Amino acid sequence: MVKSQFLVSAAAAALATIASGQTFQRLGTCPTLGCILPPDQQDFLAGQYFDIRLEVHAPVNGSEATDGQPDESFTFSIGKVGGEAQPAAEFFGVAEPELETWDFSWYEDLFAVDAETPSIVNVAAKAYRRIALYEPGEYEATLSYNGSTTTAYWLVRDLSQERRAKNVMLFIGDGMTQNMITAARLIAHKQINGRYQSLMAMDQFPSLGHQMTHSIDSFITDSANSATALYTGHKSTVNALGVYADSSEDSFDDPKVETIAELFHRIHGGHIGIVSTAYIADATPAALTSHTRDRGEYGAVVDSFLHGIVNYTWTEWSGVDVLFGGGAEQFCPPRLGGETYMDLNYYNVFTDAGYQLVQNNTQLQAASDSDRTLGIFSISNMAKWLDRNVYTDNIHGNEDSPDCSGEDADDQPGLKDMTLKAIDILQNRATADDDAGWFLMSEAASIDKQMHTLDYDRALGELLELDDTIKAAMAHLEEIGELENTQIIVTADHGHGFDVFGSADTKYLNAHKNPRVKRNAIGTYQESGLSQYINTGDLTYGDSNFPSNWDPRYTLAQGVGANPDHRENYQVHKDGPRLPATNISGFDEDDFFVNPEDAKSGFIVNGTLPTSADQGVHSLTDVPVFAQGPCQELFAGVYNSIDVFYHMAECLGLSRTSPPDSAPDNCNKGYGKQYGYHHYTEKKPMYSGPPEKQ
Amino acid sequence: MVKSQFLVSAAAAALATIASGQTFQRLGTCPTLGCILPPDQQDFLAGQYFDIRLEVHAPVNGSEATDGQPDESFTFSIGKVGGEAQPAAEFFGVAEPELETWDFSWYEDLFAVDAETPSIVNVAAKAYRRIALYEPGEYEATLSYNGSTTTAYWLVRDLSQERRAKNVMLFIGDGMTQNMITAARLIAHKQINGRYQSLMAMDQFPSLGHQMTHSIDSFITDSANSATALYTGHKSTVNALGVYADSSEDSFDDPKVETIAELFHRIHGGHIGIVSTAYIADATPAALTSHTRDRGEYGAVVDSFLHGIVNYTWTEWSGVDVLFGGGAEQFCPPRLGGETYMDLNYYNVFTDAGYQLVQNNTQLQAASDSDRTLGIFSISNMAKWLDRNVYTDNIHGNEDSPDCSGEDADDQPGLKDMTLKAIDILQNRATADDDAGWFLMSEAASIDKQMHTLDYDRALGELLELDDTIKAAMAHLEEIGELENTQIIVTADHGHGFDVFGSADTKYLNAHKNPRVKRNAIGTYQESGLSQYINTGDLTYGDSNFPSNWDPRYTLAQGVGANPDHRENYQVHKDGPRLPATNISGFDEDDFFVNPEDAKSGFIVNGTLPTSADQGVHSLTDVPVFAQGPCQELFAGVYNSIDVFYHMAECLGLSRTSPPDSAPDNCNKGYGKQYGYHHYTEKKPMYSGPPEKQ
Repeated sequence: MVKSQFLVSAAAAALATIASGQTFQRLGTCPTLGCILPPDQQDFLAGQYFDIRLEVHAPVNGSEATDGQPDESFTFSIGKVGGEAQPAAEFFGVAEPELETWDFSWYEDLFAVDAETPSIVNVAAKAYRRIALYEPGEYEATLSYNGSTTTAYWLVRDLSQERRAKNVMLFIGDGMTQNMITAARLIAHKQINGRYQSLMAMDQFPSLGHQMTHSIDSFITDSANSATALYTGHKSTVNALGVYADSSEDSFDDPKVETIAELFHRIHGGHIGIVSTAYIADATPAALTSHTRDRGEYGAVVDSFLHGIVNYTWTEWSGVDVLFGGGAEQFCPPRLGGETYMDLNYYNVFTDAGYQLVQNNTQLQAASDSDRTLGIFSISNMAKWLDRNVYTDNIHGNEDSPDCSGEDADDQPGLKDMTLKAIDILQNRATADDDAGWFLMSEAASIDKQMHTLDYDRALGELLELDDTIKAAMAHLEEIGELENTQIIVTADHGHGFDVFGSADTKYLNAHKNPRVKRNAIGTYQESGLSQYINTGDLTYGDSNFPSNWDPRYTLAQGVGANPDHRENYQVHKDGPRLPATNISGFDEDDFFVNPEDAKSGFIVNGTLPTSADQGVHSLTDVPVFAQGPCQELFAGVYNSIDVFYHMAECLGLSRTSPPDSAPDNCNKGYGKQYGYHHYTEKKPMYSGPPEKQ
Repeated sequence: MVKSQFLVSAAAAALATIASGQTFQRLGTCPTLGCILPPDQQDFLAGQYFDIRLEVHAPVNGSEATDGQPDESFTFSIGKVGGEAQPAAEFFGVAEPELETWDFSWYEDLFAVDAETPSIVNVAAKAYRRIALYEPGEYEATLSYNGSTTTAYWLVRDLSQERRAKNVMLFIGDGMTQNMITAARLIAHKQINGRYQSLMAMDQFPSLGHQMTHSIDSFITDSANSATALYTGHKSTVNALGVYADSSEDSFDDPKVETIAELFHRIHGGHIGIVSTAYIADATPAALTSHTRDRGEYGAVVDSFLHGIVNYTWTEWSGVDVLFGGGAEQFCPPRLGGETYMDLNYYNVFTDAGYQLVQNNTQLQAASDSDRTLGIFSISNMAKWLDRNVYTDNIHGNEDSPDCSGEDADDQPGLKDMTLKAIDILQNRATADDDAGWFLMSEAASIDKQMHTLDYDRALGELLELDDTIKAAMAHLEEIGELENTQIIVTADHGHGFDVFGSADTKYLNAHKNPRVKRNAIGTYQESGLSQYINTGDLTYGDSNFPSNWDPRYTLAQGVGANPDHRENYQVHKDGPRLPATNISGFDEDDFFVNPEDAKSGFIVNGTLPTSADQGVHSLTDVPVFAQGPCQELFAGVYNSIDVFYHMAECLGLSRTSPPDSAPDNCNKGYGKQYGYHHYTEKKPMYSGPPEKQ
């Protein structure tokens, strides 16, 4: 499947990377001094909008030192492989962009960091904005500078334009691996003599795949970068949302790629819903509408859900239909502690645009299904399933009310509540809009967040809530007659190195003081025994599968492949989410040790991560993809994360081999100067007609 | 898929396990005092031979203490659910077995182990030998004792008898997880800007599944137990091969289940090949023909490859066609240090039976394709790919010649050499035998063995050799016109909690003495950078994909979820396989600490396993299944490990809904007293005709 997409000229292009020996990189994707973004070996959906950034680097010092004068008269041409190349402005039918110049610095390795000897690079650059390639096939793009050339081979995939699914329901278990799914199954589903009496909803999907999560310039990804790959078909760099990372200081001028949400909205008028248990400006929800080098630009991210991208010519966007999650701090006005875009009250910005606002589960359930709806239910990340349902004292006293009043957000919905309501609103509004169909992304964000803090029980609770949500959503879609019209995909954006390796006799562990004796409480192989989470307790949840006892004598012995200094006692953290490591040195704030207050009955496990790490990290591993629906066969087998986008785009019939009839009208919305503090805003030419078909 | 096989009466049966609170168990699969083996909730292939063991327990002391008198007049009946139950002897048309009695002891928990207070149990038992269920559907088996009853519900699967594949090629990467496959891909396949320029062979299989590896009475399995599930469709207990574990002392009287090799040979006269890089008596090869509670009965295992099972009436067996691996110590005569079954020279036993013998790669390549062939290439496990191909000094001085002469085994074949030759012999012999077809199991055993010792580089080398073998085997099958007739399956028997979480700057790590500073050599996320294994070296391997440099400056930062005390420096172990922990306390031989000689430039990672563990352990995680061939669709999705057997059996058309026409003639081979030291041997009635069809 992937193999068929290899570029014929990969071998030649391969030479470019052989020199790249460092882990620290001058600019990822640019091992030479001439940089084309998108770089060599990228795929495109026919008709997908993107920007091109060109950079010529002139290092002033360091291992690549030059005269420091970048060639400002560089040229850039493009054409079909085997065909004739044209200057890019001519090829795309746009004005030649203005030259830009800047400098940046980087460290070549850890010794340079310690010695504080950065390498300085002078840059000459240009950017072509909002262009597209329509004709499927392979393209050759060439940057010529200082008598050298950099060549990028691009592939426009030849996909059917036939739409096979009306709706797409994308579930993302952030950080979820098969090791975690296996553990969640073990603690929540009864087994008799090796046979499960029930299974996870995801276990029962007909189509199984694995996707490779690595980023474009490092083999470990973050959630911004991986969400960009899943939503745009373009891998990027850690912390980047919907852009390729350039070397400029500005976080908003990096070359953009159009997302599945933007494409579906532009081409079919599809309705978009975004649901997450994280603060809603977090990377996984953000990547559907945001385009910035810095996932930390939360205010601009929230604005993009409503207004889309307005500092550069881009596709038209009229706002999401549903936006549910946490993160009130990016909505409340500054006087209430909010940190919002342009210091506005973003609740007002959304309600002024016609959104109904809901701020707790009671309001959510009572809300109209016909209005665009903003639901913000807490400050920061939402409460965890384990605290909402078992250790309920922990949801009090947090002063995390979404109105920033200092009250508690003690009536928060769960992922299932939010997802089922989102389906109703999307279905209602899409049906009223010529049955345009909808796209819903529902994220179980705290699988990742709780794995980061080594709070395995809370992470598995979040995973089981995701599975319960999938089960309920599929039942609901069947009820309303949309199941067969909806392509359902369940996947993750990356993993954590979580593993279960046995059981722990907590009575024995707690009864001994010697750390080496405590370790002998762990039972492996035959002594791992049977799961006690489902056999010894009396917690029940109707039709849903969760442990009947979270605190049995024999617990899971579990851990991760890499961690900060911490203590393990293999017991549920009843007092709320875990904090495994703290800075107790008192001076260096990036020097973390065992948190003396955490898992006191346990034994110390010293870290395998930099001492600046206070939590666990992401994994290299491929993650599973479970699919059911009209295009389920596309998602079987092993493939790259970007293929998830191409499979969704093919299923929705989003490939376009000729330009749209009219130019989008997004130059007069009055937001042109909104990102006023970005020094490139004024310089950009406004959109001047659709590109010519080549 | 799995769900459709749930037993209607599971809910009732479920009550049985609720009482089972302990991790230590009196007898796994028997929470009550009346035990039926096979226990409740087991599946069967129609016509598959198996034994039934019944035990009535009378604990003398401990938490379940009784009068200590087991009911010797227990009765056992069986019938279709909803039909009439008959006494078992009548139902199966066999003589009523004799009563057996014994006692055994067990510890109820770790406190009892420390206090040395075992619980004693008196047992009354019977065994029905070599019976079968032919009619698909659900059966109810009831043991009545002391006024109590234990009920087992059994399902005979209703599978097509049509044979869809001529051959089955089963590759097992012992201990292989997707995390390891992802790491192997990263170090052996070139990537440019996030796109792989080549892929693993297993990445390109059309059908992907996950199988659940848990054992029948513990959630972590070993390789004996998991191989039994894959080969027989019956989960078992740690250390058991092809039997359900009973409580008797005898390792050879436990109730057996017929294996895929025995079934294929009995029903179609299929030819069997077994290839492994382990000592050939190891669990994964052994489970194809052995039936013993104790995987450590190596001599008997080796005998079973040739003679099958002879101490009890069982299916006819005429010996494997191909047996390639290590483990000369179970073949050489005692005078040369061999530890063989009945002190025989097992090279002679095999050659006397007409096998050609090969003992190095040169002889292997020169061997005839028409004779049954025994190839034993080293003492113990075979040399690792990394030592055979990169650090070749390590294959000298080991005195591991398969003739036990004390010379070095320095001409050992690799898994690919053995597998390709095995295919030629099997194809040649099966074609000459009415084109009966063949079954070949090829195991990359040291993925597991090297992961156990935390020797990640060697483990990944073994995994890459497996992938190279798969690629070469598929090409060869295509050459000889058998690819489309062969169902190819690649899977694992269990996992290890291996993970890659970043890169390590070994120059920086080695340059510092402070362990906390050494940890800062680890780069995560964007600092993980690009794989240097494939971009910085000049090692090449023709058409095969392996790292071009195993010792780059920037290596993988990798580890497992649980380990003994050890040191990590994230550098290849050039002097041979790793020994991470040793007993340096000098008195307690089960008290392991960091090996002072291992990874000297690294930092110490204290263990998360019992201090009696000198290496890592197995994982709970589901493992991948890659399939291509006539039945590939059967292997898609998520299912239990036993389903791999049922899918292979269905593909080979091994289901039989009526008894064979004639009794197998295995009562006069003269081996009846061979296992003479087993006190049950004389007592067993010989086979008295085929069971009646019910």
